[in-house]
Amino acid sequence: MELLQELIKIDHQAEMPVYIQITNAFIHHIRAGRLRKGLRLPGSREVATLLGINRMTMVAAYDELKAQGWIEMLPRTGTFVTQDLPVLKPGRIKEEEKVFTIPAKPSFHFDEKHIIPVFSSDFPEGGKIILNDGFPDSRLAPVERLVSSMRSLVRLATQRKYFMYGGAQGTEKLRHILADFLSDTRGLPVSPANILVTRGAQQGIYLAAHTLLQPGDHVVVGEPGYAGANLIFRYTGAKIISVPVDEEGMDIDKLEDICKKKKIKLVYVIPHHHHPTTVTLTPERRIRLLELAAKYKFALIEDDYDYDFHYASKPIMPMASLDRHGSVIYIGTLTKTLAPAIRVGFMVAPEQFTTAATHLRKAVDTQGDSLLENALADLYKDGTIGRHIRKSVKLYKERRDHFCNLLRTELGAHVSFKIPDGGMSVWTKFLSADTMELSANAYRKGLVMGNSRDYDTYPKRYNSVRMGFASLNFREQEKAVDILKGLLR
Amino acid sequence: MELLQELIKIDHQAEMPVYIQITNAFIHHIRAGRLRKGLRLPGSREVATLLGINRMTMVAAYDELKAQGWIEMLPRTGTFVTQDLPVLKPGRIKEEEKVFTIPAKPSFHFDEKHIIPVFSSDFPEGGKIILNDGFPDSRLAPVERLVSSMRSLVRLATQRKYFMYGGAQGTEKLRHILADFLSDTRGLPVSPANILVTRGAQQGIYLAAHTLLQPGDHVVVGEPGYAGANLIFRYTGAKIISVPVDEEGMDIDKLEDICKKKKIKLVYVIPHHHHPTTVTLTPERRIRLLELAAKYKFALIEDDYDYDFHYASKPIMPMASLDRHGSVIYIGTLTKTLAPAIRVGFMVAPEQFTTAATHLRKAVDTQGDSLLENALADLYKDGTIGRHIRKSVKLYKERRDHFCNLLRTELGAHVSFKIPDGGMSVWTKFLSADTMELSANAYRKGLVMGNSRDYDTYPKRYNSVRMGFASLNFREQEKAVDILKGLLR
Repeated sequence: MELLQELIKIDHQAEMPVYIQITNAFIHHIRAGRLRKGLRLPGSREVATLLGINRMTMVAAYDELKAQGWIEMLPRTGTFVTQDLPVLKPGRIKEEEKVFTIPAKPSFHFDEKHIIPVFSSDFPEGGKIILNDGFPDSRLAPVERLVSSMRSLVRLATQRKYFMYGGAQGTEKLRHILADFLSDTRGLPVSPANILVTRGAQQGIYLAAHTLLQPGDHVVVGEPGYAGANLIFRYTGAKIISVPVDEEGMDIDKLEDICKKKKIKLVYVIPHHHHPTTVTLTPERRIRLLELAAKYKFALIEDDYDYDFHYASKPIMPMASLDRHGSVIYIGTLTKTLAPAIRVGFMVAPEQFTTAATHLRKAVDTQGDSLLENALADLYKDGTIGRHIRKSVKLYKERRDHFCNLLRTELGAHVSFKIPDGGMSVWTKFLSADTMELSANAYRKGLVMGNSRDYDTYPKRYNSVRMGFASLNFREQEKAVDILKGLLR
Repeated sequence: MELLQELIKIDHQAEMPVYIQITNAFIHHIRAGRLRKGLRLPGSREVATLLGINRMTMVAAYDELKAQGWIEMLPRTGTFVTQDLPVLKPGRIKEEEKVFTIPAKPSFHFDEKHIIPVFSSDFPEGGKIILNDGFPDSRLAPVERLVSSMRSLVRLATQRKYFMYGGAQGTEKLRHILADFLSDTRGLPVSPANILVTRGAQQGIYLAAHTLLQPGDHVVVGEPGYAGANLIFRYTGAKIISVPVDEEGMDIDKLEDICKKKKIKLVYVIPHHHHPTTVTLTPERRIRLLELAAKYKFALIEDDYDYDFHYASKPIMPMASLDRHGSVIYIGTLTKTLAPAIRVGFMVAPEQFTTAATHLRKAVDTQGDSLLENALADLYKDGTIGRHIRKSVKLYKERRDHFCNLLRTELGAHVSFKIPDGGMSVWTKFLSADTMELSANAYRKGLVMGNSRDYDTYPKRYNSVRMGFASLNFREQEKAVDILKGLLR
């Protein structure tokens, strides 16, 4: 409110009474939008002190403003700029005094080039059941433990330096712990220098792609495939070539045919578990992919966001654990392990590449959240994260089984699906209903789910939806399937 | 360590004793790097259980490994893979069994295009005094209050939904509070729909530039200017045109000359206080800039990162507060208000532009940290942030005066500078010493400071350094100046 002093200038030499000068100044600034509708104004005593005038003068000004309908005085609450402002009579005010708000359309031209698919299930909404794209149950995430750890850290004098700049690559503490963790659990021959801590897998893919690609470069992806990654590749100006994905993952023969004809700069694969189909890339194809990468000198982004959540057996070792040539850019994330909004992930690559991606990262968002990174390091160290993973895997396996059983027994005639070996969703083809219509009707019944628009790669249409089972307990799953059953009847 | 089960396969039918099979398997995997140097191994009892063998067999295997020097057993500590592994005799192992680590150089080609200037003062180091680029004193930041607020939030069931996806534009709660705050303190006629919450000013500039610019577009910046922004503009493929910055900010006559000759897409200005020179853009030039933006239809990025810290008088109202045409993209940050590592900032723009930038943001890092955003909203609401700003402004003004006094009395013959009206650093020209040499020598004496390489815009050389006074108390300032005095003598 020190603003008032600047806005209201009083001329004590003028003929016009001071209270009228003040009244006019208020009206002027309310009209101009500088004192917005609903703004709480200081009491007359406070304004009088600010402006260096007698309080009675200010009371008179407020009375006049109230009489004209510009302000409201609510007993025991305060003084406010009126929500319903008096109709502005044209001609009474000059053009530049009109109330203005920022125009919705800017005065300059720009091309809307970034149309990101918004998943129908992106928006949490009270009271609705959500069959999302395949996210963890954030109700289980050890967030209280995480915040406690942050609290302990901020009390340490030694932690204070982490509030200054530094660490675009991620804090040393987290990178050391991650190197050990990735070596112990996934056999990655990795040191902290290879690791770039990111804001989740999405940022990992973004930084890797933008560090690597130039306009016109060729990128190979799976079909169907992950729209969020394809968008990044397209945005770099690269050309996308699709290769079919079958029950064993990407078709490597087809990939080799393409490599023979064209210089390929990047191949993007999701080995556990392909998005959207959830298939696991077989060990044989992994070895062949590595051989092709070394032979044709393409970079291989291994997006292993789902590694921890494999139920059929142990997860298959990442290609990065066997990559002697330095072909693999390995992407992982904690958002699936903990909760989507805890945005920490990592990229692992040959040191030269990690350094280059770290440079780009400085331009994009300077650095990560050092406090959060160090708190997560503590949770790795004390075993919280390991325990949480084991607990979640056990629970999500049960939820998968329960959900697939419901799909089979309740919706069997209307859907076709394969029980996924891992991950958090079932890739479900609807045989009779159109998913666009179905999801719109489900929404009205209290169920939020995706539709084929989220997964189609035009012109290919799948009429299929990823149905996330992991974030719903048995009762919620039953309610969701019950709603669908009612609609499919 | 469940990995061991996968790595070690025992053939009970084989002639070779089981303990030798196990010994060989360990050696094989240690050589291959899958069991890394220094790795803590489970005790013999645990491994025996894992592998389903007699414990004595495992003890024998460990004894053999120890005798050969592959593992170490430290009393009361545990069993570890030896740090100094036995020399590998060539010929004894197959090529593919060699210990391998990820090669530093990748197998694929990439152009190192992103060379970001690393500020010499970027890295906090124990025991050294740091004259940084102009950052706040993070020792004063209310981080304990912030984490307490996060702690209260995670205990609320209603907060849980914020751990799922949603809110690429920033949480509704923070955007509402920011809209009120910006309207009340800076006169911005803004609604939550205009605001995109970012990871600090850098991400704001990044998203604005990449939403707006196409390769070949012309961008006007000040000379000297902010390297971190110029880098972003160059990276989009835009062409940069420099306009001199004098005592009143960017030279608007020169800008108009350029606009008459070329289509300008974007003008980037830092009104409070230009980086690196710290000058404030005068009100007259602000009005002219707005007029030019409307006339020539260029976008105007107003990077007001330093707004809160103006000491000479009240800050000058942002151009965004007078922008009726929708020309201004207004950038602000909390990193200067609180601490550099608390990475939250904002972009304010016409709604269509904010929406497009939000789409791009989804590709870059999906969304922000909802918990942190809501905790900051609480700190705005309860007045913590307002109080912290008032307290810091008072303190930094005293620190500025003390520091400038020291520069004048102690180093007067060697430096030339103007007392800045605001901000957190003094733009100091060194008259006798070369700053490259000076900063190297200062480092050896325990003082970290920038050098001209951080600020030169080649081919222009300034031999000047921003000396951040805000994060040093009087005693630290005196020590810093004393070190410089010793070196300049």
